[in-house]
Amino acid sequence: MKTLPFTKQQLEEIASRWPTPFYLYDEAGIRSTAAALKDAFGWNKGFREYFAVKALPNPFILKILAEYGCGTDCASRPELLLSERCGITGEDIMFSSNDTPASEFCLARKMRAIINLDDISHIEMLEGNGGIPETVCCRYNPGSSFSMTNQIMGNLSDTKFGMTRPQLFEALRILKSKGAKRFGVHALLVSCSMDEEYYPQLAAELFRLAVEIKKELGISLSFVDLSGGIGIPYRPQERAVDIARVGGQVRQEYEKILLPAGIELAIYTELGRFMTGPHGYLVSRVIHEKHTYKNYLGLDATAANLMRPAIYGAYHHITVAGKEQLPADTLYDVTGSLCENNDKFAVDRLLPACQVGDLLVLHDAGAHGYSMGYNYNGKLRCAELLVKPDGSVQMIRRAETAKDYFATFDFTGLFDDIKD
Amino acid sequence: MKTLPFTKQQLEEIASRWPTPFYLYDEAGIRSTAAALKDAFGWNKGFREYFAVKALPNPFILKILAEYGCGTDCASRPELLLSERCGITGEDIMFSSNDTPASEFCLARKMRAIINLDDISHIEMLEGNGGIPETVCCRYNPGSSFSMTNQIMGNLSDTKFGMTRPQLFEALRILKSKGAKRFGVHALLVSCSMDEEYYPQLAAELFRLAVEIKKELGISLSFVDLSGGIGIPYRPQERAVDIARVGGQVRQEYEKILLPAGIELAIYTELGRFMTGPHGYLVSRVIHEKHTYKNYLGLDATAANLMRPAIYGAYHHITVAGKEQLPADTLYDVTGSLCENNDKFAVDRLLPACQVGDLLVLHDAGAHGYSMGYNYNGKLRCAELLVKPDGSVQMIRRAETAKDYFATFDFTGLFDDIKD
Repeated sequence: MKTLPFTKQQLEEIASRWPTPFYLYDEAGIRSTAAALKDAFGWNKGFREYFAVKALPNPFILKILAEYGCGTDCASRPELLLSERCGITGEDIMFSSNDTPASEFCLARKMRAIINLDDISHIEMLEGNGGIPETVCCRYNPGSSFSMTNQIMGNLSDTKFGMTRPQLFEALRILKSKGAKRFGVHALLVSCSMDEEYYPQLAAELFRLAVEIKKELGISLSFVDLSGGIGIPYRPQERAVDIARVGGQVRQEYEKILLPAGIELAIYTELGRFMTGPHGYLVSRVIHEKHTYKNYLGLDATAANLMRPAIYGAYHHITVAGKEQLPADTLYDVTGSLCENNDKFAVDRLLPACQVGDLLVLHDAGAHGYSMGYNYNGKLRCAELLVKPDGSVQMIRRAETAKDYFATFDFTGLFDDIKD
Repeated sequence: MKTLPFTKQQLEEIASRWPTPFYLYDEAGIRSTAAALKDAFGWNKGFREYFAVKALPNPFILKILAEYGCGTDCASRPELLLSERCGITGEDIMFSSNDTPASEFCLARKMRAIINLDDISHIEMLEGNGGIPETVCCRYNPGSSFSMTNQIMGNLSDTKFGMTRPQLFEALRILKSKGAKRFGVHALLVSCSMDEEYYPQLAAELFRLAVEIKKELGISLSFVDLSGGIGIPYRPQERAVDIARVGGQVRQEYEKILLPAGIELAIYTELGRFMTGPHGYLVSRVIHEKHTYKNYLGLDATAANLMRPAIYGAYHHITVAGKEQLPADTLYDVTGSLCENNDKFAVDRLLPACQVGDLLVLHDAGAHGYSMGYNYNGKLRCAELLVKPDGSVQMIRRAETAKDYFATFDFTGLFDDIKD
């Protein structure tokens, strides 16, 4: 059962100040998850979460997470700048990009971010663009050699990310010869996994690798980066990953594999969805009710605000504010207004009977929601609001205006008089 | 065989002025298609193409199309404003939206656009928001009653668009009673169809409907709107739709069905992809070559520039500039730099052997290309350039900057000093 941390009255009050649709983030929830992750890995000296900025690139959110020691995982100049303006700099940034432009290597080096190299060929590029740093990370792709108990993995040999095992060893050797002093290894093997064995098994794989790297290259890794991949319960019947249990199991692998080898290293994570996903809501109003071959509720939000249902068929739970106690006995397609038939937030969803004016709240929109928004059909991206622990509400991103939409035509003078 | 209307030297000259990636539109090609469509339906008095703005929302393109009598098909305030600033106003605009906000009905009415009503319930909304116009259109969804020879249709009963047949008749009756004087019917039944029978069969369906509407309601339709749906040959082995032949076949149906019934009406279309799709190219440079379990070419473009391959697995043909004559004997995945494994422009594509620095040109990106771009991972949307018939090049949209990316944080002061 998914519940809202807001009442209908609260939502209507907010909607009276900021027109729907808008994103609403629950600060208390974000803090609670950040604290739980920190606790789960508190046993590991040097543990750090590098929040995957692409999940929710908002400075107000990054600053909250920074209070819990979170750095940022960045992959572009704007993400680096965003991080910097939040006071997150130096090795609090993991520049974990792939297919990286030279100019971004330069900027990341200038900011003294940790560089996570996706490919062995990037060593030469980095050397010519910012230089080889003292601390460096290499991204590993084990290909078909990695498999998990109880789980069929996607074919890792088909993913564009990371280096093969021989390349990884060669890359570390070269980097050491070029003056790097502290090394890490990074791997991301799944996306949105609900399996509590994922992190422990990945950690075990990387810990064993650390032992071999020490033996073969005489390099004692300073950190392993477990990256992201931990999912969230989008569907009401799913259970959240118990991060304390996961942290404990990673610790067991650490003590079993690394301690006997005399290796001490820090564990890094790059969680995005797990951190903020469940604490973000897209709030939208029903503006049309349509009955043709099916029943439709038309929202004032569209896929431009939240794209995942339209393009992945992703499930986002919907609560009708104020109708939480009513039986979900009416079958609806819940649509946006794009001229695309896939602009549907839900297909064949049972909800309480709804009317024009009802507030529908889409759950679990706190990651890869706003950030995947676009302007198709001239639709504008909406505001982001933060509900603070004391219940007050702060706008943390304003809604786009037509002026923003036309910004890249500013040299034409055609739209100069459009202000909102 | 797909060829480029530009040489490598031309592309390199353009790239020396505007950094890759960029969109390149071939004005001569757009003019040629616009002229061909106009010719194909020249027999029909009142024929008009309402270009589907969402395909390529650029004022310079809209103005070129307007020279061929094209109006615009709009579905949002920004699209209406864009149209207006190109001098396309009044009944040269078809406001063909669904799940429409009241404020946009008001604006469209104020601009005297033709309103295309998606649902019978919109009559009341329109009446209260701008009023019932003299000219009005209703969108029809025939559900499972429509089928085409030689083609399996998607299930029209599952699409969110349009009215059922009884609703359509009722809507026309109500609209007439409320003072509307000129009526049209609109239907879109497929997307990106290469079947030359589609328009003729749809037209026949709507012409028969017009006869019945005249008989039952005493309303002689002023127009039928065949909407869009005509595809383009994305793959080299596909053949373009022969629009002259299509126009001729629609004429046959017109003469067979409408003339005997004493009905004369205008035919409208809302083609987008067909008009500009083949005449747009995304030009990008190889910035990385990577060899792990597969061979990868890393471009400086990403799904942020062209989303269709990443989200639909859509095929876009690729030409390596200057290597047109070399054998396509090397298997590549062609990737962008998003931290998403689906950010691939091509998977297992045979190309001539490529190196860093090569210019790769993605074909058929002139519709639903730029307009579906987003800013995921902090990626910025690129410039749009127009190659004129005389070979000169004009920037018709500047590239986004980090300043644009941070625009919706302007109230925070955090990013004030970022200018580019």
